[in-house]
Amino acid sequence: TDVKKIAVIAGDGIGPEVVAEAEKVLKKAEELYGYSFETEHALFGGIAIDEKGTPLPQETLDVCKSADAVLLGAVGGPKWDNNSKELRPETGLLGIRKALGLFSNLRPAVVFDCLKEASTLKPEVLEGTDLMVVRELTGGIYFGEKLRRQGEHGEEAVDTCVYNVTEIERITRQAFEIAQKRRKKLASVDKANVLETSRLWRETVNRIAPDYPDVELEHVLVDNCAMQLLRRPSSFDVIVTENMFGDILSDEAAMLTGSIGMLASASMGDSTDAGSFGLYEPVHGSAPDIAGQGLANPIATILSVALMFRLTFNYAEAADAIEAAVAKVLDEGHRTADIAVDKSQALSTSQMGDLIVAAM
Amino acid sequence: TDVKKIAVIAGDGIGPEVVAEAEKVLKKAEELYGYSFETEHALFGGIAIDEKGTPLPQETLDVCKSADAVLLGAVGGPKWDNNSKELRPETGLLGIRKALGLFSNLRPAVVFDCLKEASTLKPEVLEGTDLMVVRELTGGIYFGEKLRRQGEHGEEAVDTCVYNVTEIERITRQAFEIAQKRRKKLASVDKANVLETSRLWRETVNRIAPDYPDVELEHVLVDNCAMQLLRRPSSFDVIVTENMFGDILSDEAAMLTGSIGMLASASMGDSTDAGSFGLYEPVHGSAPDIAGQGLANPIATILSVALMFRLTFNYAEAADAIEAAVAKVLDEGHRTADIAVDKSQALSTSQMGDLIVAAM
Ligand SMILES: CC(C)[C@H](C(=O)O)[C@@H](O)C(=O)O
Ligand SMILES: CC(C)[C@H](C(=O)O)[C@@H](O)C(=O)O
Repeated sequence: TDVKKIAVIAGDGIGPEVVAEAEKVLKKAEELYGYSFETEHALFGGIAIDEKGTPLPQETLDVCKSADAVLLGAVGGPKWDNNSKELRPETGLLGIRKALGLFSNLRPAVVFDCLKEASTLKPEVLEGTDLMVVRELTGGIYFGEKLRRQGEHGEEAVDTCVYNVTEIERITRQAFEIAQKRRKKLASVDKANVLETSRLWRETVNRIAPDYPDVELEHVLVDNCAMQLLRRPSSFDVIVTENMFGDILSDEAAMLTGSIGMLASASMGDSTDAGSFGLYEPVHGSAPDIAGQGLANPIATILSVALMFRLTFNYAEAADAIEAAVAKVLDEGHRTADIAVDKSQALSTSQMGDLIVAAM
Repeated sequence: TDVKKIAVIAGDGIGPEVVAEAEKVLKKAEELYGYSFETEHALFGGIAIDEKGTPLPQETLDVCKSADAVLLGAVGGPKWDNNSKELRPETGLLGIRKALGLFSNLRPAVVFDCLKEASTLKPEVLEGTDLMVVRELTGGIYFGEKLRRQGEHGEEAVDTCVYNVTEIERITRQAFEIAQKRRKKLASVDKANVLETSRLWRETVNRIAPDYPDVELEHVLVDNCAMQLLRRPSSFDVIVTENMFGDILSDEAAMLTGSIGMLASASMGDSTDAGSFGLYEPVHGSAPDIAGQGLANPIATILSVALMFRLTFNYAEAADAIEAAVAKVLDEGHRTADIAVDKSQALSTSQMGDLIVAAM
């Protein structure tokens, strides 16, 4: 049989707990659909700093590289926040993105009907919101040269934001292709009235746009986009933008759905076609405050498995089954503490995982 | 008598219309309080490009420099959007900020009770929201070196983000001082887990924080701040951040109040103490689509005059009177088209201005 190799990186905080539930889902999919997964666990983030002296050990990278896909829980925590740069979990995160060539971060922001009330936005504004932020993930100010120096006015720090046409073209082509498979609307976000990188971004998008005549393109300035996401979230389909803007806007978009504990994300390389390598992880963080208590919501991680099935393995049937199972369990009123109205009735992490597996 | 000189820059789009109403308010304040204003009009932005070949003519800068304060309408429009950089209105805006040393942009985001319904946020979430974004305005990626070059992977563009301790210290001290006069809470926003400039920012804030022991300080990552503004807007008091983050977050904060057509802003230099030079302008833009039709809402510009009275002239009584007049007119149900439920009942720009003047 066709054995799929999955690198499993549990990470820190609630990472191990939510990943454990996602692994139950993998097992159930093997039973139901005759798939075969070979999972290999690897150390990453804070726990790798503690055990191996680096957030991204070479073994971990090797495990990822030999896998078909990576499932990541979450990394980071206060324990490592004051470490020097090389010994911080985030440095591992940036390192793994770069080393695996994951330049495209797909962050769907959808509204779960039963959680609409959890949003701070009015339900009628949220109605129909279903957008996808396509964030460039291996360029820009995240990866440009950084330095400290003595200047005329005391110590100074420098960050450099660099983009070349090749980087811009590959991410925006992916965004156009994704839009073609959705509602055929693309908003390219930049700050072309101020930044040179944004001007190159906009020129490049305009140059390739004729190749996608069926996609309606708009250019939106980043400050305006931060406003329009609040004013008319449902009018967006696909948003493509550079790394730093994507970090901010994708979090804003996720939060406004009210479903942040439920959102999955994918980081992809050269292709988002079925069969492509990808790293899948929940949008939420490592939540150190509730770690180890069985309180975490495993749904975002379980939905990350569905996204992996869809994008990397082309297992659409199983992906549908997982998503349907999640919807069913929620519709039946089952909640973990983060989304429960009555916290005393909340399920534990593993109870929620078991219910979803049973509903598959 | 003590004559106050005000440089008046009407600018483009709806700028001239809204500024005309603000000037009526200045006149009325002279009558009521015995003040004496000398206003001098100057060309700026698109109209200056058309008439003088540059967005920021030297005469305009001279008029501003010899004034005690500047009142600005709005600049920009599609007519100049495809101009080369030197011939764009935004370049004038960046130029005037730098030339006048206006490194501190104060953007209050408050909720007008009668407009609470205009927000896309739930009223109960918005309840009590009254925050001020203090944005660094003359540094960072806006003003760092920019370039285009041929690289290994085709054309590339570079923007440089630079901050020195002096720049960080002066803006964060102002923010602490402003917080001391408000609810004594300061959120410093950065991306210290990725950017070197942010690490210097955070170190500097932490170094000076002990000088303001009565202010409760929190550090918030920019992506998290974009979320928290949506989740708990009323928990923020003063937010201080660098130029690019401030651009995005202040627009998000303004929009969530639902009162964006009503918000004033101040750009200040070395001091925000009474008597300091400042440039005052509405938060909204030049709205070319409705320009010249008498549809624009002049309230944000009129409230910019109130802010000028408070911060530059120390005319607290008149500032209170303007704000009270605006509140009264709104409470009586008068609306311009942008905030009217029944657009057919909407007042024109000058009708709204006249009512506010009459209510003073
Ligand atoms: C932890 C941090 C470096 C990271 C980022 O900014 O990319 C995170 O915010 C994310 O969005 O994945
Ligand atoms: C027009 C533009 C250059 C400007 C900025 O980004 O500063 C505007 O968005 C603002 O916030 O005043």
